[in-house]
Amino acid sequence: MDNDEQFIKVAIDEAKMAKVTGEWPFGAVIVRNGEIIARAACTETGTKNVLGHAELQAINTACLAVASNNLSDCAIYGTNEPCLMCASAIFQAKIPKITFALSRSDLPHLLRERKLRIEDLAADAGYNPQITKGVLKEEVLELFADIKK
Amino acid sequence: MDNDEQFIKVAIDEAKMAKVTGEWPFGAVIVRNGEIIARAACTETGTKNVLGHAELQAINTACLAVASNNLSDCAIYGTNEPCLMCASAIFQAKIPKITFALSRSDLPHLLRERKLRIEDLAADAGYNPQITKGVLKEEVLELFADIKK
Repeated sequence: MDNDEQFIKVAIDEAKMAKVTGEWPFGAVIVRNGEIIARAACTETGTKNVLGHAELQAINTACLAVASNNLSDCAIYGTNEPCLMCASAIFQAKIPKITFALSRSDLPHLLRERKLRIEDLAADAGYNPQITKGVLKEEVLELFADIKK
Repeated sequence: MDNDEQFIKVAIDEAKMAKVTGEWPFGAVIVRNGEIIARAACTETGTKNVLGHAELQAINTACLAVASNNLSDCAIYGTNEPCLMCASAIFQAKIPKITFALSRSDLPHLLRERKLRIEDLAADAGYNPQITKGVLKEEVLELFADIKK
């Protein structure tokens, strides 16, 4: 298992915990110098708060952990392609490496297709992050297999 | 002073408080049934947290206040055009009315122009919010007059 897979696996663990508590199975992890500094699950359903997305919560924890709003020496790993809110937060925090398992288009029965993608936001923000998709895709697809809209 | 101006004025008060504490003078207010349920200033510099944008903090407070991630019966007022992170959060929360004083393009010496705007995100999210710009513009411009990049 390479490093990317190792960290996506932790994001999957977060997603599994989220699912057990009635949340959507979204998980995210932020890594700095090879160490996990933040991990978070989706909490939106339980907290009834749009800020409960896993990536946003992970960024919140990571900013606190390193006492900086500049996470340019970090990487973020997630079960899913970040929504535009979370993608914008990732670029606000200058995270240069983004890795996830499922693209939005992998869940056409659950998520409406959108024209704007994370790459569009990156280009608009003047960033050129390293984006890797499809890592442990089958494992994450399994998490969504029994979920209906 | 009409209602829009009244609420933008409160956002300006938040922005002024932010400025006094060394923050960028950004402020936001969320209103429901004519009452303010959340008001927030930018706290990003002090908290060193990208989640410290005024709009995001106001949405956080509003979700807590009404115990819902659905703010479709609310309106948001801000000193400035929301960044794409905050704009996405506004659409995640389904806020249908967005009013602000300054557009991004009103501060060309401070903010890099961007191609993607709040309208693009709204269209992509399938929303058609009521967006009003330029309310009390001169008052907010004054707040930025002595700020250098």
